[in-house]
Amino acid sequence: MDASRHLGLDLGATNLKWALLERRGDAWSIRDRGQTPTGADEGADAVLDRMAALVGEASAGADAPGTVGVGVPGLYDAERGTTTFLPNLPPEWTNLPVVAELGRRVGMPVRLVNDARAFGLAELWLGAGRGCRTMAGFVLGTGVGGVVVVDGHVHFGHDGTGGELGHQTLLPDGPPCTCGNRGCLEAFARADRIAAACGTDTPEEAVRAARAGDETAIAGLARIGSWLGIAVANVAVTLTPERVVIGGGVAQAGDLLLEPVRAEVRRRVHVTDLAQLEIVPAELGPWAGAIGAGVHGASVAAVTPSRLAS
Amino acid sequence: MDASRHLGLDLGATNLKWALLERRGDAWSIRDRGQTPTGADEGADAVLDRMAALVGEASAGADAPGTVGVGVPGLYDAERGTTTFLPNLPPEWTNLPVVAELGRRVGMPVRLVNDARAFGLAELWLGAGRGCRTMAGFVLGTGVGGVVVVDGHVHFGHDGTGGELGHQTLLPDGPPCTCGNRGCLEAFARADRIAAACGTDTPEEAVRAARAGDETAIAGLARIGSWLGIAVANVAVTLTPERVVIGGGVAQAGDLLLEPVRAEVRRRVHVTDLAQLEIVPAELGPWAGAIGAGVHGASVAAVTPSRLAS
Repeated sequence: MDASRHLGLDLGATNLKWALLERRGDAWSIRDRGQTPTGADEGADAVLDRMAALVGEASAGADAPGTVGVGVPGLYDAERGTTTFLPNLPPEWTNLPVVAELGRRVGMPVRLVNDARAFGLAELWLGAGRGCRTMAGFVLGTGVGGVVVVDGHVHFGHDGTGGELGHQTLLPDGPPCTCGNRGCLEAFARADRIAAACGTDTPEEAVRAARAGDETAIAGLARIGSWLGIAVANVAVTLTPERVVIGGGVAQAGDLLLEPVRAEVRRRVHVTDLAQLEIVPAELGPWAGAIGAGVHGASVAAVTPSRLAS
Repeated sequence: MDASRHLGLDLGATNLKWALLERRGDAWSIRDRGQTPTGADEGADAVLDRMAALVGEASAGADAPGTVGVGVPGLYDAERGTTTFLPNLPPEWTNLPVVAELGRRVGMPVRLVNDARAFGLAELWLGAGRGCRTMAGFVLGTGVGGVVVVDGHVHFGHDGTGGELGHQTLLPDGPPCTCGNRGCLEAFARADRIAAACGTDTPEEAVRAARAGDETAIAGLARIGSWLGIAVANVAVTLTPERVVIGGGVAQAGDLLLEPVRAEVRRRVHVTDLAQLEIVPAELGPWAGAIGAGVHGASVAAVTPSRLAS
């Protein structure tokens, strides 16, 4: 079967990650990957130029990609090919026509995707969700991203916001969430709240401390795991996924986080067979966003945007 | 286009409802419907005979059905064609081979479905969910049933338990639920809790009292609506449905229940466009279960169970 190549870019507030993928039918492999500082303070044009330069470098060899997918940390309009709201990037990234601007620079089809849905695509096709028909994913980072897969497809919803599992309400009068609600999963399990619960400055430190036996950190991860477990339980009764994939820095804690999740799910779910549910760590680490963006971009391989056709 | 006819039976603890449907392609209509007491105390054989008699009556005219679907209030094994656990029927209904037993009596294909998923199929094809790609449904009855529709299909999950939205946790240390968990939607919104919240004996009385201006009943329905609203909000961020359909006796309260639901959803959902979400009452009333069972049964129209082929 013929191979095709697809570049994925993961636009973060700090770093711009990229992954070059090869596809043969449904089999995907990672050819190369890397990252460079986003440099968002230099302005959107400079960032777009930097993204175009990465595409140019990837296109220099024999393995030139045919499509580009861009994962963005927030909301976008798939039809118009624009961002709509990226809370952690400068305001000029609101309503920025990324598909047209980057497409013009690189001369190939460009497609946008939310970074958490990109995580889901990556884990589904190349990672911990391989072979799943129904899957849910949580990405514990600065915020808490989510994704759901139903019948083998990432569920984007009408506007790409399907699967925002971090904004389930877990405690109606709970702590305020950045979204405006109270008691969302994100209000308990975003990076600063994990660090605070563990008595550390960052989730990464919390993981190190817990592994070294620090009881405050271990108890903190267990509390976070219980909240995450309630969210997993709610997804379990809603969708009966075969696998729930937990990613983000704190997932490095492994069973120090996942065993409390599993215990909470066992405590709460009695209406479906839990023997059919695995709760597992993500496999692709910080590269999932770029990889998933590449997978998403590939699905327009046969489409030429109107801006490119003119 | 040729028409085919399909019978649906809704096996309740008290009543056995039936609906005779006609299908032309994707267009469904209801030819006739009715109910008879289940008579569960006379034993499962008597109930199966009664079900077979209903099929016989429906088959007497020119409009004879070609398939039978049976909605059951609980768990079943689709592959084996047996019930597995029906909490409100006598214990002999556990592991009862309904497909084989009823199929033998009526000589046509029989298929099982959970009654809440049948509600979803009915509202999707013939009711308030017509034309939806993504939909969620809640049925507020003795318990609280649920159903989700993704990409135009009811999501059954691996064992038919997909969509159990009544068993989302809304308050981690909330009141005990019949399922074994605490703080499920069902623990707030099942019939006896609705009646208690409204100072009446039944949800139907609560609706009448609230309509007559009784302030306790109005406030009770508003509290129930708020809990239901949290559950709707969680489904909204997970699946971004176009429509959420609320059924069951208390849905007769209309906006006395639904306005508090909508207000709670507006308070909680900030990560997807609520202009795309309608929260509406079900349209098919107590007949949804029988109608949806008929729709589900029709999907085996071309299949002859092995017991019938021999």
